[in-house]
Amino acid sequence: MAHPIAFVSRTTEANEAEWIEILASALPDETILSIKTMTAEQKTQAEVAIVANPDPADIATLTGLRWIHSLWAGVERLVAELGTTAPPIVRLTDPELSRVMAEAVLAWTYYLQRDMPAYRRNQQSAVWKELEYRHPKDVTVGILGLGTLGAAAAARLRQASFNTMGWSRSPKSVEGIETLSGEPGLKALLEKSDILVCLVPLTADTKGLLNKTRLNSMKKDAAVINFARGAVIVADDLLDALDTGHLSHAVLDVFEQEPLSAQSPFWSHPNVTVLPHISAPTNRQTSASIVAGNIQNWRRTGVLPATVDMARGY
Amino acid sequence: MAHPIAFVSRTTEANEAEWIEILASALPDETILSIKTMTAEQKTQAEVAIVANPDPADIATLTGLRWIHSLWAGVERLVAELGTTAPPIVRLTDPELSRVMAEAVLAWTYYLQRDMPAYRRNQQSAVWKELEYRHPKDVTVGILGLGTLGAAAAARLRQASFNTMGWSRSPKSVEGIETLSGEPGLKALLEKSDILVCLVPLTADTKGLLNKTRLNSMKKDAAVINFARGAVIVADDLLDALDTGHLSHAVLDVFEQEPLSAQSPFWSHPNVTVLPHISAPTNRQTSASIVAGNIQNWRRTGVLPATVDMARGY
Repeated sequence: MAHPIAFVSRTTEANEAEWIEILASALPDETILSIKTMTAEQKTQAEVAIVANPDPADIATLTGLRWIHSLWAGVERLVAELGTTAPPIVRLTDPELSRVMAEAVLAWTYYLQRDMPAYRRNQQSAVWKELEYRHPKDVTVGILGLGTLGAAAAARLRQASFNTMGWSRSPKSVEGIETLSGEPGLKALLEKSDILVCLVPLTADTKGLLNKTRLNSMKKDAAVINFARGAVIVADDLLDALDTGHLSHAVLDVFEQEPLSAQSPFWSHPNVTVLPHISAPTNRQTSASIVAGNIQNWRRTGVLPATVDMARGY
Repeated sequence: MAHPIAFVSRTTEANEAEWIEILASALPDETILSIKTMTAEQKTQAEVAIVANPDPADIATLTGLRWIHSLWAGVERLVAELGTTAPPIVRLTDPELSRVMAEAVLAWTYYLQRDMPAYRRNQQSAVWKELEYRHPKDVTVGILGLGTLGAAAAARLRQASFNTMGWSRSPKSVEGIETLSGEPGLKALLEKSDILVCLVPLTADTKGLLNKTRLNSMKKDAAVINFARGAVIVADDLLDALDTGHLSHAVLDVFEQEPLSAQSPFWSHPNVTVLPHISAPTNRQTSASIVAGNIQNWRRTGVLPATVDMARGY
């Protein structure tokens, strides 16, 4: 019998119980235990930890740990808290997550292309006024980040005829769309995009990526969608760019502090759509079966899927 | 030299001039004149009229008229005002119009599936609350009307994985979706749809189609999108169904009276999205080239495209 797998999270007890139940049925040959219920001996035995926002102090008690499977795709907090001494981390790459994120990008791109915020404002004043229709091919959507999620979003936007461009730190190619990279590429993307979609991981390089200078270098009346992490955009600089009218709208699903503080000016800003981190919710069933497959494969072959580059941060 | 073509509309002078200019460049061998500038002799000579909401009294002065080309797809007013003695009417069937309408249906279906109205309400009260994500395959979208626009919308929704069904007066089949017809079919569609999309033409049969009984036979918490004509839904019955909470939301782009009166309760209803008839705006360029093609073909061969069945109304 293999050693137990530790489940480590800072979520509620009910939520944790649900996760363990779904994971246990996906992994019938394994014993999955909440770290809160593990004996000192079990903690030294566990080779694998499945984690969702774990307390690093809990992870430190797992002295026999060989690797960590994150239930989340975004691991910036894990990387920051565990440091470079952590065992290899596998982050979730769920095709269903990519599908849902690509759908969210398309849905909120339509929201902006079809002027839903402006029609909403007009409705509030009983104003009947047709705004000019823009064909998707005349709307340039720039995607920041061409990882799994960015590439899936690009494909979906392209299929819907949007003039889609993408940017990544290092050069990448994505079928059917223009891709740019590095600082000059970023500048070009910002200048051309009518709608900018953030899908970069949060790293030391992308923290505050969209600051005053970069936001002001965007096209007048452009809009921003942030489905990545709050800290990618400097909040005050974004508010300034909206207040001066340089940018027309921001759809924000992520914030430096979540839940967003009730005092945040974003809530009541007329040109901001606040969403409670819902663009691509985790699907427990598909996540659990992917985690299970990775663990079963490791038990059989000793091989792990691609692990997080701790220096790069994703 | 062929006799002049009459342009007849109740639009503004500027709008009329723009239309005539675009039509003239699409038909360089024709003379297109506003009826307001035609001599009595020219009025007796014109064999073709291109119309956009024409005054029936103007049409009556065109005594040599052989046929009418409508710049609009919806001809219910033309049929009602001209009566069965009118010459054959050709209505606009523009693939670009179908594309834009299908895009609108998808965009506002996402608006409802992704709970944008509910998130908007939560934002107004600074409430951070995740609502349950619904996969498109678990959302049944029922389309009323399977003409050119309905079929295009169905294909687009199906491509986006929505569980799409369609209804038409007489049986029709559309690839990949379940189709229903007649009164029993309508009952079934209303009972199953989470989102109901109206795309039927306005006729004697469809006027008031969605009345109290039919709206109440819909699934609890279902939503309605009306991109057809206002009179297809009985406005007061819809307001009742929204007020009792039986229906969750209505996206209304069309109204019995347009522009919508400033006194209409729709403007301020929390569960109504009012749009100023913008779901599928006419594209002058593509419309003009289709009208031009039909006229050139008639000049050459004497053959007209399918004309409106005046008894049926479309």
